Amino acid sequence: MDAATVSADELHEAWRLLSPEERVESFGFLSPEEAQDFFLDVRPADQLLIIRQSPPAIRRSWIRLLAPDDAADLLQEARPEERAELMALLDPPTRREVSTLLAYEEDDAGGLMSPRYARLRPDMTVDEAIGYLRMQARQNVETINYAYVLDSEQHLLGVMSLRELFTAPGDRQVADVMRTDLVSAAEDTDQEVISQLFSRYDLIAVPVVDPEGRMKGIVTVDDIVDVVEQEATEDIQKMGGSEALDAPYLQVGMLSMVRKRAGWLSALFLGELLTATAMGYYEKEIARAAVLAVFIPLIISSGGNSGSQATTLIIRALALSEVRLRDWWRVFRREFAAGLGLGAILGALGFTRIVIWQKAFGTYGAHGFLIAFTVAMSLVGVVLWGTLIGSSLPFVLRRLGFDPASASAPFVATLVDVTGLIIYFSVASLILRGTLL
Amino acid sequence: MDAATVSADELHEAWRLLSPEERVESFGFLSPEEAQDFFLDVRPADQLLIIRQSPPAIRRSWIRLLAPDDAADLLQEARPEERAELMALLDPPTRREVSTLLAYEEDDAGGLMSPRYARLRPDMTVDEAIGYLRMQARQNVETINYAYVLDSEQHLLGVMSLRELFTAPGDRQVADVMRTDLVSAAEDTDQEVISQLFSRYDLIAVPVVDPEGRMKGIVTVDDIVDVVEQEATEDIQKMGGSEALDAPYLQVGMLSMVRKRAGWLSALFLGELLTATAMGYYEKEIARAAVLAVFIPLIISSGGNSGSQATTLIIRALALSEVRLRDWWRVFRREFAAGLGLGAILGALGFTRIVIWQKAFGTYGAHGFLIAFTVAMSLVGVVLWGTLIGSSLPFVLRRLGFDPASASAPFVATLVDVTGLIIYFSVASLILRGTLL
Repeated sequence: MDAATVSADELHEAWRLLSPEERVESFGFLSPEEAQDFFLDVRPADQLLIIRQSPPAIRRSWIRLLAPDDAADLLQEARPEERAELMALLDPPTRREVSTLLAYEEDDAGGLMSPRYARLRPDMTVDEAIGYLRMQARQNVETINYAYVLDSEQHLLGVMSLRELFTAPGDRQVADVMRTDLVSAAEDTDQEVISQLFSRYDLIAVPVVDPEGRMKGIVTVDDIVDVVEQEATEDIQKMGGSEALDAPYLQVGMLSMVRKRAGWLSALFLGELLTATAMGYYEKEIARAAVLAVFIPLIISSGGNSGSQATTLIIRALALSEVRLRDWWRVFRREFAAGLGLGAILGALGFTRIVIWQKAFGTYGAHGFLIAFTVAMSLVGVVLWGTLIGSSLPFVLRRLGFDPASASAPFVATLVDVTGLIIYFSVASLILRGTLL
Repeated sequence: MDAATVSADELHEAWRLLSPEERVESFGFLSPEEAQDFFLDVRPADQLLIIRQSPPAIRRSWIRLLAPDDAADLLQEARPEERAELMALLDPPTRREVSTLLAYEEDDAGGLMSPRYARLRPDMTVDEAIGYLRMQARQNVETINYAYVLDSEQHLLGVMSLRELFTAPGDRQVADVMRTDLVSAAEDTDQEVISQLFSRYDLIAVPVVDPEGRMKGIVTVDDIVDVVEQEATEDIQKMGGSEALDAPYLQVGMLSMVRKRAGWLSALFLGELLTATAMGYYEKEIARAAVLAVFIPLIISSGGNSGSQATTLIIRALALSEVRLRDWWRVFRREFAAGLGLGAILGALGFTRIVIWQKAFGTYGAHGFLIAFTVAMSLVGVVLWGTLIGSSLPFVLRRLGFDPASASAPFVATLVDVTGLIIYFSVASLILRGTLL
């Protein structure tokens, strides 16, 4: 990288490909203004890297660029022994705000909120309010789009958007024109619930209040876009059968990547070993009629695929609150019908394929038609079963307090494989007893 | 539902469980003010339902509640023969704006943008600009957080946030204090790219300009929260091996639900039929050594699971632009190492399990150790292969112009199943030739 010409945009492009050392080094090539913009754009972990590598004398100026909620995010990335030192770099009021924020869970409203919001008193006139807001705009408030009307004990009485202030008659009292039917969140409201509030009501900011109705801070929509993306990423990664990576793909170290994937993969493997046990019971049948083995991959993967479909649809519907826990019976009936329909379609396809091959090449010996019938019936059973397991598992997990997204496609497929084998060999012994078996 | 007491919040709760007829009916029970708020909150398809059921005399007042971009969304849901009639209900300026918006793709910047933004002239003073903005706030602009500075031919020269206006000296000219380094989008920029702009720069609104730099409209962050959620939902549903549902789970009709799922499931089934063909070639080996069949489900599902993991991680990394097409070689090398590591772990687990069972119960006959070795080697091969296929497929799909999310876990598992069988039986014939085979 040419030291003389690197711009913030070029560095943004290259950033995800650089090692931590290269990041710190190339950051040093930016002009001071670009470095500031860039610093504010990168993830807290990278901000921390940059601060660690800066000479002690200028660390203070970097960390003071951050709003209290961003400073809190950075401190959460820091090693425990670093924290006190970093905290000491903040100015005293910010330090107090940051300590308060650090007491909240990172994924709660409390962890997302900023304590710097614009405020008004209820007895001001609209003209006074605009003047007061113009003054607050020069200070460090997160947004002036909404001004919150508080009484002397910080109770949240109402809200006015700047636009409402602009269009209200200048001599009316704020208390008379403010909106009081406002959407707010508690300090421990989960970020996923908050993002649904934003999405449903098309909001720019949500106030966070304590149980007594006292204003604690605001969560702004720019943080929520990140939350929505991050929650979806975590769900998707879990649904693919690994732990959430918690960092962009190329920035996860090789060892930690293998560790995050090996856990689930090994657990699934141990579950899948049960298929070897189940198959052990049917070894005699297979020795007698090896043709049965031919359809094993087809049968179990059809169960796995239909289970993956169902579990994915339900996990996402639960995440978006399109479906609630109490809807399980409704969902179960729908999935029963869907599973039966899908099973019938695959059963018919399988039956047709075997009968055609049998007529054309005599592939499956004397009992081709019975084999076709066995496979078709097994498919109906396995697909129905896969669909029901796949759609129920996310409900069971949520009921037990786990994340429904852990009902990953591979997890469901593994569950369905063992039972799929049992269904197949049971159907086979019913239909083929006395002929092949 | 008690007609006298239904509130907008209660109806919001119940809405997703109601049939279209029940929706229209219960909507009629709201008070006029609550009905207006509610109407603005529901999806365009539901707004259309409500308008269709209203007496012709009041349809006009419903549709005129909508901003032009929302009216355009509603018209996109309408049947072609309804459109002219609905268009006629709009006032003439809105009708012109809506026709322009309808010419854009729904998923582009043009389809998301609103043509109603606040504007300033470069030669105004800051004080004049604030007054002018206060006037525009009374009109129907989408947001007054940003005011766009345009010349007489609508070229976008710069932007000022309301906050910057508030804090700038009142007698300076807008042209001297406006920001000119602004982020903008083209009319045909995809909504996924736009949402990344919002996420990267923490924006509230993005201006959309034509190739000559003339301002066409703005996209606001409240629409982007929905876009991010909707894009993730589509990806997740495709990754689970079905088509995107395009509506909340409980609102999709049974027939359309089965249709959207049967397509992929049948395609995967046809692919999976190749396993029956492949197995046909190994029928003699299985008849000779039925013990080989015992490990088939274990082997192929391990390949499928590792493939699902890899494909999911890469699809999401591509969707978030953490990884680009040109990074494929970097990713391939990482996944080669990861696949080898994961294969070694599963191989060791499988080897241990078979050897223990063999020592304890003699389960696998005279050649137990050779069988354990065969299974372990096959696992290394299959897991490595599954990981490479799973991580490469999203790149191949994107390169060919398809959606990488179509490389669903079930799709990858199906691809890997056939090749997994071939790997397994090839390893077996190498190791067991002369003993079991």
